[in-house]
Amino acid sequence: MNTTELIRKKRNKENLSKEEILFLVDNYTKIKIPDYQFSALLMAVYLNGLNKEETSALTEAMLHSGKVIDLSSIKGPKIDKHSTGGVGDKTSLILAPIVAAAGVNVPMISGRGLGHTGGTLDKLESIPGFRTDLSLKEYKSVLKKCGAVLIGQTKDIAPADKLIYSLRDVTGTVESIPLITSSIMSKKLAEGIDGLVLDVKTGSGAFMRETKDALELANSLISTAKAFNKKVIAFITDMNQPLGNYIGNWLEVYESIKVLRGEQRGDLLDLSLNLSGAMIYLGSKAGSIKEGIEIAKEQIGSGKAFEKFVQMVELQGGSTKFILHPEKYPKSKFIRKIRSKEIGYIKSIDNFRVGMAALELGAGRKTMEDKIDPKAGIIFNVKIGDKIKKGDVVAELHSQSMDKINTAKEMILNAITYSKQKTTKPKLIKKIIK
Amino acid sequence: MNTTELIRKKRNKENLSKEEILFLVDNYTKIKIPDYQFSALLMAVYLNGLNKEETSALTEAMLHSGKVIDLSSIKGPKIDKHSTGGVGDKTSLILAPIVAAAGVNVPMISGRGLGHTGGTLDKLESIPGFRTDLSLKEYKSVLKKCGAVLIGQTKDIAPADKLIYSLRDVTGTVESIPLITSSIMSKKLAEGIDGLVLDVKTGSGAFMRETKDALELANSLISTAKAFNKKVIAFITDMNQPLGNYIGNWLEVYESIKVLRGEQRGDLLDLSLNLSGAMIYLGSKAGSIKEGIEIAKEQIGSGKAFEKFVQMVELQGGSTKFILHPEKYPKSKFIRKIRSKEIGYIKSIDNFRVGMAALELGAGRKTMEDKIDPKAGIIFNVKIGDKIKKGDVVAELHSQSMDKINTAKEMILNAITYSKQKTTKPKLIKKIIK
Repeated sequence: MNTTELIRKKRNKENLSKEEILFLVDNYTKIKIPDYQFSALLMAVYLNGLNKEETSALTEAMLHSGKVIDLSSIKGPKIDKHSTGGVGDKTSLILAPIVAAAGVNVPMISGRGLGHTGGTLDKLESIPGFRTDLSLKEYKSVLKKCGAVLIGQTKDIAPADKLIYSLRDVTGTVESIPLITSSIMSKKLAEGIDGLVLDVKTGSGAFMRETKDALELANSLISTAKAFNKKVIAFITDMNQPLGNYIGNWLEVYESIKVLRGEQRGDLLDLSLNLSGAMIYLGSKAGSIKEGIEIAKEQIGSGKAFEKFVQMVELQGGSTKFILHPEKYPKSKFIRKIRSKEIGYIKSIDNFRVGMAALELGAGRKTMEDKIDPKAGIIFNVKIGDKIKKGDVVAELHSQSMDKINTAKEMILNAITYSKQKTTKPKLIKKIIK
Repeated sequence: MNTTELIRKKRNKENLSKEEILFLVDNYTKIKIPDYQFSALLMAVYLNGLNKEETSALTEAMLHSGKVIDLSSIKGPKIDKHSTGGVGDKTSLILAPIVAAAGVNVPMISGRGLGHTGGTLDKLESIPGFRTDLSLKEYKSVLKKCGAVLIGQTKDIAPADKLIYSLRDVTGTVESIPLITSSIMSKKLAEGIDGLVLDVKTGSGAFMRETKDALELANSLISTAKAFNKKVIAFITDMNQPLGNYIGNWLEVYESIKVLRGEQRGDLLDLSLNLSGAMIYLGSKAGSIKEGIEIAKEQIGSGKAFEKFVQMVELQGGSTKFILHPEKYPKSKFIRKIRSKEIGYIKSIDNFRVGMAALELGAGRKTMEDKIDPKAGIIFNVKIGDKIKKGDVVAELHSQSMDKINTAKEMILNAITYSKQKTTKPKLIKKIIK
């Protein structure tokens, strides 16, 4: 096979065969195809697309560039969840212990935050001692003992994805449905799962701002999961405002603890229960998502979900001191309340800006090398549709630097628009696709 | 400026500004933008195109990556011709002396053959001693003395073109009208010319098989030439059969001598006169192309064109022995006639295959490193529309190897189709665009 000919084929809107895609990914991973040829191919894929079969073939080629974890020694169903990311999205921390408590294994390989979105690994690492870099042996051992495990991508898992993603990042080929699909699915399939619940977010704080793009991505992910005989359910959910109220690494762990202890209602609890319910259903421990949700609620009510969380933290080397007594966690040097200068109903929130404000405060990284401040972040008190009086606290900012707080304050104030008329709360779950 | 952002811009079908294009070409030439980013850009350009202004900006950026030759010390008009290449296309060798004899300077920088098409440099180098690697000083000196000079591209001329072309070659981005335009025009404009005659070929032996593509390229070349205030005329000409009858390096020099001596009529003479006429007209030595053609004919009739050719060969270090006595040139070891096995009118010639057969015989190179056999080639006796009897000689093959002759023979026989009914001769000049 000739690489230039294959590039020309995709350039001419022809379909690539499974063997051709394998040839390209395999040789690129082995550094036998140079970056400059692969980037031309990526641009042709970006502009001319890949059909379902090509997307599955690309996913398979990327998956088999590394190890596929064998979880056959672990009894019971193995179900994971993937979210496309957003502001304040900490459902992984909540649903993993709930679902594990309900008897479904949750083997989860997660990512770090970049840009305006947080990452599950960064959140967990705000717990002193928590290790996300377990070996595959440790990973299996934790999963076997408590039914849930949360680690970072290892170099054995889909190495082609890491190479291809780096190249996409500098060649303007990130925002492509088939390329996003293969990147997500190659890593998820490597976990050794039986099924997957997808949370595809849409709105001002999501990568897919438009619902139609989120739907397209969801359908692409579903068809690829099905091509690999995995059970799958996708949720299209709202990201036009932060999920829950806490943004920032420890702040999000703290809010997760509150939800797991049954101390908090609202959108974060609702979405966590829905996703947990779907996972329990896919794990055949419930006859429907609805029944799964009831089982999930029981895990919170009985205290089993929180116990499971404590167990998981302990097994992954984390100190349970702050999990059991979160009020003892160190506080940021500066904590400042932002008060509304306006009156009216909250009409919209530029959620991307809210995420960027949290990053500014120290909760995120601008480049992969940046250090994160685990304490930094925002408690965002308001939701779209809320009635606000002048002087109401809209948010509380946590940082080690007053300069950063001042910058973030302006960002937050500018992110919110008000209306004299009553405004509609956005629907949290826009669609469920089975 | 950020390279990834500029790639994204073109990817999103937005236009790049002159400054942005200059930034990209300049930094790529200085190796500050890596190949993998430039190739993604090239694919985006291939698929989303460049408008007239962008194409001119790209041409200008490539032109100014190197030297622009200053010919102001040489009196009189300077007009060049560019052909997009074909099988048996040796008009440069014929028109340069004709036009120079008519008082118009012809400063010509040419290329080598690759694939099924021959290159002017390779043809000239079949003349013992002929140097195509003149310094710029020698180039000017020859031009001043005889009014015509034919050399190869130097490393000072549009170095960006060489870099970009090499990358296009391995990334499936060769066949792009704006990229072809900027490649041709950046080199031609560097010659220091006042005007340019374009011979854009179409048909089975041309790079642009379809006339509509040839027209598109011609219009793109014309608009770019005009943007640089150059006089320009484009011919769309037929390449569905070899031009003239001789294919191969020395064989084409030989046929050119015959035409310059007034010993041969037919399509090669006709096209050479037309292109010469247009060049003489652009050089203001005639009031119309038609008048230019009459002047061109006089140069042949009077013997001045041939004298000019001899002078140019001498000035560029070539031996005139074989020019004056071509019958003394060494012959190929094997010369074999191919006879028709069929009866009828010639309907079509796969001219690409004829070119590849000449390459097979030793007249061309499969890679840039291959050595050429100057004697090798084909005398192709027939034209579309000719009536053929069984046993008629359709071609004569010249090579040092009988194996090659046998392979080429099959290629030639398979390239020709016959019809019982009379067939139409293709029109040589399809269109002239001023």
